[in-house]
Amino acid sequence: MAGKIVTFGEIMLRLAPYDYERIIQTNRFQATYGGGEANVAVSLAQFGDAAYFVTRLPDNTLGDAAIRTLSGYGVEVNYIIRGGNRIGVYFLEPGASIRPSKVIYDRAGSVIAEITIGMLDWAAIFKEKDWFHITGITPAISKSAAAVSLEAVKAAKQAGLRVSCDLNYRKKLWTRDEARAVMSELVRYTDLIIANEEDAADVFGIHAGANDVKAGKLDSAQYRIVAEKLAALSGAGKIAITLRESLSASDNNWSALLFDGKNFYESRKYAIHIVDRVGGGDSFGAGLIHGLISGWETQTALEFAVAASALKQTIPGDMNLVKEAEVLAVVQGDVSGRVRR
Amino acid sequence: MAGKIVTFGEIMLRLAPYDYERIIQTNRFQATYGGGEANVAVSLAQFGDAAYFVTRLPDNTLGDAAIRTLSGYGVEVNYIIRGGNRIGVYFLEPGASIRPSKVIYDRAGSVIAEITIGMLDWAAIFKEKDWFHITGITPAISKSAAAVSLEAVKAAKQAGLRVSCDLNYRKKLWTRDEARAVMSELVRYTDLIIANEEDAADVFGIHAGANDVKAGKLDSAQYRIVAEKLAALSGAGKIAITLRESLSASDNNWSALLFDGKNFYESRKYAIHIVDRVGGGDSFGAGLIHGLISGWETQTALEFAVAASALKQTIPGDMNLVKEAEVLAVVQGDVSGRVRR
Amino acid sequence: MAGKIVTFGEIMLRLAPYDYERIIQTNRFQATYGGGEANVAVSLAQFGDAAYFVTRLPDNTLGDAAIRTLSGYGVEVNYIIRGGNRIGVYFLEPGASIRPSKVIYDRAGSVIAEITIGMLDWAAIFKEKDWFHITGITPAISKSAAAVSLEAVKAAKQAGLRVSCDLNYRKKLWTRDEARAVMSELVRYTDLIIANEEDAADVFGIHAGANDVKAGKLDSAQYRIVAEKLAALSGAGKIAITLRESLSASDNNWSALLFDGKNFYESRKYAIHIVDRVGGGDSFGAGLIHGLISGWETQTALEFAVAASALKQTIPGDMNLVKEAEVLAVVQGDVSGRVRR
Amino acid sequence: MAGKIVTFGEIMLRLAPYDYERIIQTNRFQATYGGGEANVAVSLAQFGDAAYFVTRLPDNTLGDAAIRTLSGYGVEVNYIIRGGNRIGVYFLEPGASIRPSKVIYDRAGSVIAEITIGMLDWAAIFKEKDWFHITGITPAISKSAAAVSLEAVKAAKQAGLRVSCDLNYRKKLWTRDEARAVMSELVRYTDLIIANEEDAADVFGIHAGANDVKAGKLDSAQYRIVAEKLAALSGAGKIAITLRESLSASDNNWSALLFDGKNFYESRKYAIHIVDRVGGGDSFGAGLIHGLISGWETQTALEFAVAASALKQTIPGDMNLVKEAEVLAVVQGDVSGRVRR
Amino acid sequence: MAGKIVTFGEIMLRLAPYDYERIIQTNRFQATYGGGEANVAVSLAQFGDAAYFVTRLPDNTLGDAAIRTLSGYGVEVNYIIRGGNRIGVYFLEPGASIRPSKVIYDRAGSVIAEITIGMLDWAAIFKEKDWFHITGITPAISKSAAAVSLEAVKAAKQAGLRVSCDLNYRKKLWTRDEARAVMSELVRYTDLIIANEEDAADVFGIHAGANDVKAGKLDSAQYRIVAEKLAALSGAGKIAITLRESLSASDNNWSALLFDGKNFYESRKYAIHIVDRVGGGDSFGAGLIHGLISGWETQTALEFAVAASALKQTIPGDMNLVKEAEVLAVVQGDVSGRVRR
Amino acid sequence: MAGKIVTFGEIMLRLAPYDYERIIQTNRFQATYGGGEANVAVSLAQFGDAAYFVTRLPDNTLGDAAIRTLSGYGVEVNYIIRGGNRIGVYFLEPGASIRPSKVIYDRAGSVIAEITIGMLDWAAIFKEKDWFHITGITPAISKSAAAVSLEAVKAAKQAGLRVSCDLNYRKKLWTRDEARAVMSELVRYTDLIIANEEDAADVFGIHAGANDVKAGKLDSAQYRIVAEKLAALSGAGKIAITLRESLSASDNNWSALLFDGKNFYESRKYAIHIVDRVGGGDSFGAGLIHGLISGWETQTALEFAVAASALKQTIPGDMNLVKEAEVLAVVQGDVSGRVRR
Repeated sequence: MAGKIVTFGEIMLRLAPYDYERIIQTNRFQATYGGGEANVAVSLAQFGDAAYFVTRLPDNTLGDAAIRTLSGYGVEVNYIIRGGNRIGVYFLEPGASIRPSKVIYDRAGSVIAEITIGMLDWAAIFKEKDWFHITGITPAISKSAAAVSLEAVKAAKQAGLRVSCDLNYRKKLWTRDEARAVMSELVRYTDLIIANEEDAADVFGIHAGANDVKAGKLDSAQYRIVAEKLAALSGAGKIAITLRESLSASDNNWSALLFDGKNFYESRKYAIHIVDRVGGGDSFGAGLIHGLISGWETQTALEFAVAASALKQTIPGDMNLVKEAEVLAVVQGDVSGRVRR
Repeated sequence: MAGKIVTFGEIMLRLAPYDYERIIQTNRFQATYGGGEANVAVSLAQFGDAAYFVTRLPDNTLGDAAIRTLSGYGVEVNYIIRGGNRIGVYFLEPGASIRPSKVIYDRAGSVIAEITIGMLDWAAIFKEKDWFHITGITPAISKSAAAVSLEAVKAAKQAGLRVSCDLNYRKKLWTRDEARAVMSELVRYTDLIIANEEDAADVFGIHAGANDVKAGKLDSAQYRIVAEKLAALSGAGKIAITLRESLSASDNNWSALLFDGKNFYESRKYAIHIVDRVGGGDSFGAGLIHGLISGWETQTALEFAVAASALKQTIPGDMNLVKEAEVLAVVQGDVSGRVRR
Repeated sequence: MAGKIVTFGEIMLRLAPYDYERIIQTNRFQATYGGGEANVAVSLAQFGDAAYFVTRLPDNTLGDAAIRTLSGYGVEVNYIIRGGNRIGVYFLEPGASIRPSKVIYDRAGSVIAEITIGMLDWAAIFKEKDWFHITGITPAISKSAAAVSLEAVKAAKQAGLRVSCDLNYRKKLWTRDEARAVMSELVRYTDLIIANEEDAADVFGIHAGANDVKAGKLDSAQYRIVAEKLAALSGAGKIAITLRESLSASDNNWSALLFDGKNFYESRKYAIHIVDRVGGGDSFGAGLIHGLISGWETQTALEFAVAASALKQTIPGDMNLVKEAEVLAVVQGDVSGRVRR
Repeated sequence: MAGKIVTFGEIMLRLAPYDYERIIQTNRFQATYGGGEANVAVSLAQFGDAAYFVTRLPDNTLGDAAIRTLSGYGVEVNYIIRGGNRIGVYFLEPGASIRPSKVIYDRAGSVIAEITIGMLDWAAIFKEKDWFHITGITPAISKSAAAVSLEAVKAAKQAGLRVSCDLNYRKKLWTRDEARAVMSELVRYTDLIIANEEDAADVFGIHAGANDVKAGKLDSAQYRIVAEKLAALSGAGKIAITLRESLSASDNNWSALLFDGKNFYESRKYAIHIVDRVGGGDSFGAGLIHGLISGWETQTALEFAVAASALKQTIPGDMNLVKEAEVLAVVQGDVSGRVRR
Repeated sequence: MAGKIVTFGEIMLRLAPYDYERIIQTNRFQATYGGGEANVAVSLAQFGDAAYFVTRLPDNTLGDAAIRTLSGYGVEVNYIIRGGNRIGVYFLEPGASIRPSKVIYDRAGSVIAEITIGMLDWAAIFKEKDWFHITGITPAISKSAAAVSLEAVKAAKQAGLRVSCDLNYRKKLWTRDEARAVMSELVRYTDLIIANEEDAADVFGIHAGANDVKAGKLDSAQYRIVAEKLAALSGAGKIAITLRESLSASDNNWSALLFDGKNFYESRKYAIHIVDRVGGGDSFGAGLIHGLISGWETQTALEFAVAASALKQTIPGDMNLVKEAEVLAVVQGDVSGRVRR
Repeated sequence: MAGKIVTFGEIMLRLAPYDYERIIQTNRFQATYGGGEANVAVSLAQFGDAAYFVTRLPDNTLGDAAIRTLSGYGVEVNYIIRGGNRIGVYFLEPGASIRPSKVIYDRAGSVIAEITIGMLDWAAIFKEKDWFHITGITPAISKSAAAVSLEAVKAAKQAGLRVSCDLNYRKKLWTRDEARAVMSELVRYTDLIIANEEDAADVFGIHAGANDVKAGKLDSAQYRIVAEKLAALSGAGKIAITLRESLSASDNNWSALLFDGKNFYESRKYAIHIVDRVGGGDSFGAGLIHGLISGWETQTALEFAVAASALKQTIPGDMNLVKEAEVLAVVQGDVSGRVRR
């Protein structure tokens, strides 16, 4: 039984060179649209859930194009409001091997930065919905976006929805202190927190011990402690942590663990040859929400989320264009990549 | 001394997205033309053999374009007949890493499905030729295509040609029972049978023991037994089996073994980083036919076939666009990929 | 006030070479999705109407991709049913100057050809809708598609919708006699008939007098007579005829006339330098429906329809991706193509 | 003898779909860099002049890429300062036939908007230079950009340079009143003013009489009066007016007139089939500056400028990539477009 | 009844930017293969004739690719010899509107420049053939190429073939004096001479009177005199002259006249919107040879040749990829460019 | 403090298929410009050094385009002279996995082959410069190019510059004996020699012992002996040797060692997944020159050079488009390829 999930955040125009070219040498950009919460919504819609994406977009053709992407992939777009000056833009220069991917955000003054309390009718939006998802990016965009984010989680909670939050710390958007101030309040309304190896440290100063993330080796045991601390600090019932071992820009190991306040669940680890790693965390979130809202066992939901997000990283663009059945095939062990005829 | 080889089958329009895009997100398809027996013919022509491809194509520009591909790569096309409604089409969504490649066949009602006994003048076609090659795909397309396939192998045998058949079971085209009924007769006219790890099981119920093809590890010893059983069942003088260990959609190990009724020959195993794995088996067949028709030692022919088909998987499209000398360089041990200036 | 319009028909994968290449020389196809009634639905959705497209699509990724196109452009897709074997395909080779565009239809055995009476719940579909639109292509696809088309118009009429039909004769799909038999019945349920210079002659044997369509000059006076005869024959309240003067594949004159049983309305004539003329008639239909359903004066609606369809022919693909305001700017006389900054 | 010309303004990233696609349907943008004064600098460098472009660019790879474009085409870039947050961006949707081109500017908060008095060392920049060129776009970007523009023209005048200004009114950047206030002062330091059919009216309220620019017909006599009034108002020695008759987005007539306080010079009129009309006015300015700085007769310089800018509109991108000899061939009457072998 | 035609010359790699880009700004070249006589051969093969192209190509993959092009379009390639260092290359920068197309030839030291007498076995080549065609480009490439050209026409004549020659003067390859010396002898073996408006003047000093080819207007009466003089000078039975009125690089008028020693035949004149004008003359030659070898009336053959070459100019690349039936449709008057469904 | 470095050599047009296509199957080439010494100059300019590239280029648009590449990436181009017939061209067919990359040089008769003593004013060029770099490719191009190369190194030495030479043996340009004769003299003027595993053997007959370069394993100890012998033979103060272990065309290990007459320095070894390996050696040279001219410690300079050239191989084209800071990040150990946001 599919759930009804609302997500709220920014959807941006993403511009990326082709064929591993650097931005300085390219004269073509692939143009797609994406953003943390929008990616979650698209992935959920592909799984068959009813996904509602809430945002603000400028009333121009770039706004129309962003909506086309969302509705094209099955997301409900009728809560999107129009207005403001510009869509946020981000430039992605995909890395390869030892060369890291680089991202230039150009989102100052974007329509979502200028969103204000009261613009969105949360009561109407949350009516008869099951789940609300947000990330730590949205409150980081501007003070008023932070205010609207808090407005949203409170309204969601009040309307009886389950609430999830992906910490997603972005150091170019705000300082650690600013993040902590806002996120400390926000997570109090949260049932599920998703974080990666670094978020907990960046946002809440919770450290995983002696891991060196650049060395490409993570000790999951250390992250159990992180999860416990996060649970204590937030009161959230479930803490999920994605674990990426970056062997290079081309090859990663990918797994996750989940703490439900009592037990630890640890997923299978996938070795991935990467096509596009952007949106990996978002697709994990979508997979986990899908599993939990479907009422699956915790371990099952976690394995689904990890397999889904491993698949994502083999697909170009921000969004995880896979069906539930495709994820389940991977969960059931078929990672041989043999041709399906 | 080059041989004169006839192949018969379907050539289709192949449509594949670029840059690992999924079909749902793409707006461009790379358009090439290929098919099991056509791929064998092109590879043989590249090796310097006289290759004749026999098929039926619609009398429209898509049929012209398929012929352009064949004659452009040196295949003799004058036995091709024109007529019927549509060229077969297949959509290939190339996979990456743990995401499998997917194929959608759209060949119902194609010109080759509607071919009938008597349309082709086999006596004229086989005059002064040395070898006839067919695959298990062609008889699977339709009942009348199966009839024409049997008509062809009988005529070839009668005309004194050596006959080879690649089993190539396609489960979406027919059932195992249908396949067994037709192929049991067809292989009786065959001097050389080519199969992969699964074909023998699918078509004749001959199993290789405890291999798990999805796990990416094959035990070649098990396949010796398969080869012996296939030889016994068919009466064919030579049985070749290609062994693909699918580590992922991006990385495979590739080797083969051959049983000539007396001895087993086993090839070197290649680790391949895959550019396009479609046509791998076809290029193996072409390499083996080229080696055998050239009068090379069995082990030499087998090594040539495996090296040729390993190279194929580094080339986009269905067809193995390599010269004999390029294959020999690999056989002689240069797999370092160093630049040839 | 926007209307609620249902359209029913086939949406196909369209494959076209780039840069005026011929199919024989190309190795890339631009892949879009389109079809007469689907194009009308998209155009209406762009104008702000609620457009519902009804069809059958295979349950594979090509069907998903067609739906993505529709929903991406704002069309409601929840009445689409899934099933059957293959999506229809058409190959478009765009012409230039004296070289005509060519179309190869590959729609035999498509999902819509195999649709049958009762598969669609017309009562539910037409509930609280205002208008139903169909074209002469859909009943031409197969006998059962013709039956469903009749089922649809009758149900629409019964549910109190206005019904429009674009005659759109396709000589490769059926004979003139077959067309006349079916269409004579179908138009009886129709409030508005749309036809081009040739349809009335092809379907109903109504001729416009001494026009030579290949010579690129049309005498609109002759077409008044055609309109009157069509009105008499069908009983439809409104007859619209589009008039295309093909100076070459690159340059056309484009206008239309409308007869409402009493008066003749004739539109401005546009000289168009063509980017993509496919879908020109469909966009006229959408413009006219939009104008009429908006309650505009007949002349206003006609001018809107002609301007909209003139604009369409400057846009790549089947679909008219223009907003109402853009059409109105042209109607108000700005055809200078000056930059809008 | 080539001159030394300084230009000052903003260079932006320009993003435009390919193949006449609309932005809503595209997934690829051609990425080039351009802007009024930068385009003038590139054109002058192509003519063999020493062209110095002064601007501010962010210290990121997009700023590097803009510089690569400039220095690649021979412009001196050592006066460019780095700093600030973002490069300005503009989206260009090229029109065709009756569909107008559309531009979406996204330059709020760009590095040039935040430039302030004193950032640039004008005395050093103007040392041993001959000419300074600016357009009305730069002062329109922000109040501080206007202040720097005035700072620049005064310093140029003081350093003994000739000064030219292209009025280039942009209604989305400022109001007519704001423009008049700033530009009235700026033109007082100007030797040469360049304007198009609408600028004089928009900025100074000087009207050309009964022309209807949308109708594609201009009466050059009317523009003589405009030129006289502009000369009187500004005190500039030379007034040049470009005259564009927009027959459609695809076809324009293009000419110019020049008033030197005494005589009127009127150029040949070119019928252009347009490839890319952006930068047409800029290339006229560059051609005129090149002619005047080369000491050519006024009529010769004017004809050169018009021919140069007619050629520009046949070249993709903002910039006029033609050599002096190519322009002279057109001036000398060869507009037949015959192949040069 | 199809004829057997031999052509001899150079086939080059052609490199051209996309989308009207200039070479200085492009980073992509479209790669095709073409050359005067090769283009004739391909066109004849498309018409159904047996066309044999004779040349020398280097024994590398570029030589293979040129052969792929020829055999792909149905040309017999078995008389091609391999050897030498490099394939000739030419860069084509397509013009637009008033901007002329530019060609940079890079053929010094090419394999055909180094061809020598005796390399080709003309007796074997011409056995059982009907017609030999050459152009004035081949003897211009080098002295030894000129010697082989003469060797060829003499052998052709001796073997009883009809011989045609397209004068095709290339001023960058040789001087007028050099051309006259060689061509005077060569045309003595010729039955049919093809020339354009300028060749007769350049090669033989025969002038057409007061035409100004740059002005885009040609007086065909003047060219009758040219034809008579050419006939007198060469002794050839037929003189055909193509007449191109270059209105711009985008729009040309195109026609031809033919003098058979007695009568003048003048063709219909076509207004062409040009996609690619390279190979226009070659496709005329192919059309005329096809018509004459098919035994058609002179006027019919001429009209076919002109229509064929008008169509060519709407097709990208050097080669005329049209079938006989497509040309006949144009000859019969359908130049409206209406869609063929 | 940045240095002033002069490099001298050939810059060629490089043509390479996209997407791992073979040349025989492609119809598009990516067009870039590069060459050993030009690549060094660009890399140095990216590091912030003043880099002057000296060459001869034809006075056509291909020469302009090569200059555009150089000046676009910040190289000083005012010492480049124009003249001669053709730019050198090379075709690169990128390999993958076990398929080697192939290069076809087409540089016979290029402008640099025809350069002669006295064409370049070395005294002026070397005035106030710090370093001169050349490779063994330039003297190999022609006898006169060898003479100019010697002229250059002597003049550089006389002007007090440090001189470096990358041996870069190209067996298709000259024989080992020819190379030895010229290079023996040239290296006598050299302070730094750069060689790869094979150059020392090819040019000077110095062998590294029992390495099998095709087997992908190198014993660096053996190369210490090579370095010592090279130092003895040349008198150069520093000998650097790059060590490439070719596991396949897709995966290499990459490191280097340096002998300064006293000590051996050995770098970290990088495992690289290759995007484009051309220019790897050149980028090493640039990195080493940059480190040495910056006065860094030898080990630091060597590590910088190896990291720089490892990064190069992840970037398309010949040129190393990385900044100093990006290299330093790798040197400092971040090879995890994590996204930089």
